[in-house]
Amino acid sequence: MERMTASVLRDGERDEVAVEEPLEIRVDGDALAVTMRTPGHDEELALGFLFGEGLIDGPRTAGLTADFANNVIEVAGPLLRDPGSRRFYTTSSCGVCGKGALEEVAVHAPPAGPGPVIDRDLLASLPDRLRQPTFERTGGLHATGLFDARGELLLVREDVGRHNAMDKVIGRALLDGLVPLAASVLCVSGRIAFELVQKAAVAGAPILVGVGAPTSLAIELAADRNMTLAGFARRGRVNVYTGAERVTAR
Amino acid sequence: MERMTASVLRDGERDEVAVEEPLEIRVDGDALAVTMRTPGHDEELALGFLFGEGLIDGPRTAGLTADFANNVIEVAGPLLRDPGSRRFYTTSSCGVCGKGALEEVAVHAPPAGPGPVIDRDLLASLPDRLRQPTFERTGGLHATGLFDARGELLLVREDVGRHNAMDKVIGRALLDGLVPLAASVLCVSGRIAFELVQKAAVAGAPILVGVGAPTSLAIELAADRNMTLAGFARRGRVNVYTGAERVTAR
Repeated sequence: MERMTASVLRDGERDEVAVEEPLEIRVDGDALAVTMRTPGHDEELALGFLFGEGLIDGPRTAGLTADFANNVIEVAGPLLRDPGSRRFYTTSSCGVCGKGALEEVAVHAPPAGPGPVIDRDLLASLPDRLRQPTFERTGGLHATGLFDARGELLLVREDVGRHNAMDKVIGRALLDGLVPLAASVLCVSGRIAFELVQKAAVAGAPILVGVGAPTSLAIELAADRNMTLAGFARRGRVNVYTGAERVTAR
Repeated sequence: MERMTASVLRDGERDEVAVEEPLEIRVDGDALAVTMRTPGHDEELALGFLFGEGLIDGPRTAGLTADFANNVIEVAGPLLRDPGSRRFYTTSSCGVCGKGALEEVAVHAPPAGPGPVIDRDLLASLPDRLRQPTFERTGGLHATGLFDARGELLLVREDVGRHNAMDKVIGRALLDGLVPLAASVLCVSGRIAFELVQKAAVAGAPILVGVGAPTSLAIELAADRNMTLAGFARRGRVNVYTGAERVTAR
């Protein structure tokens, strides 16, 4: 757990903040992407990112290089396809609209299976069960947790970027042979936009819940992929937007 | 103010959520970027984005095209340089480290001038003065506000993406001839990562305050550009990380 926080001066006193540094993801020596992230679990981040983009379908060998202060990670190829730019943008029949984005995700993510049924009160309480040791010290990190349907926390990752936290969880799950996450619940500490649902869908997770609000396109994608999407999980309450059949009645 | 919210069903009742749709930014017909954003103020978004990347240095003609459900905006060129990929990534001497990122911003952003001095209690209260009409209905939008040093709100924009809200404010300011924002205070409704400080620095804003935590690299960049960076502005308190000389003593 290296370098996740840094000590800074503020108002003349020492304080801790979350570290943010660039990470370059290379595949067989070719630079593919740069993301601003919190160091730590970089192999998971790289694999989760590539998996969510439909570029790999299983674990790969990956490791930080000695270059640039350990901010370059090398992943062994080959990729499943030419990365190009974002696929839904370059190849969809409707290049730039919500429908095109949904169709693109469908290429990599079959509709969710029936999945588990989760108790509504338990679903509402999942964010409270997200252990966030670094958030407690800095208040500056997003978290994603992987739970089973009984509310057992299997895995949690933190990052300054909400997408990175999700990528790290999915990358770890990939390395542990847990993907597709057909019996699991993903829980995020913030709001739920399209890309988080995309990543959950590609990983095969049937249920995604967050502390914050979902966007319109997040809801559309969850409905399209037959997923359960829930938001505003706080103070014992939760809003269920899609897939209510996987949540017990109030 | 078109399409900023959408009506959805949740738990069998009607609810409003923030709209998220892709926007393709084209310059002289060439697609440059796609961002997921909340529709509305797209001209401002495009101009603010291009300005923050150092690709334009003043207002340009821009408008939505009839293609793809109004999700394509066309901006008149030429650009100041070849966009390539992110410049700090492709050309910096230290490609992928915090130092390289800081050096890259310095190319487009001279150090902030002396700027105003703001009352500490007033600074702490700025988030409360951010009017967020759409957030109140959906809970799903980030906001950026532009204030003068007496706490007068000059401009506010909302978006599902925090960077977009900042881009819209800066794009509007650019159109109104207010850039550089040498006498102004920018206020964001969330956490403060590197990219938000970058955008504020390029726009010449001497003071940036947020409701949430700053990251390590956000603080480093603010210090490097001689800016005042403050976070955790809530409940009458605020933490000042850099540039304390622009904030009255406690």
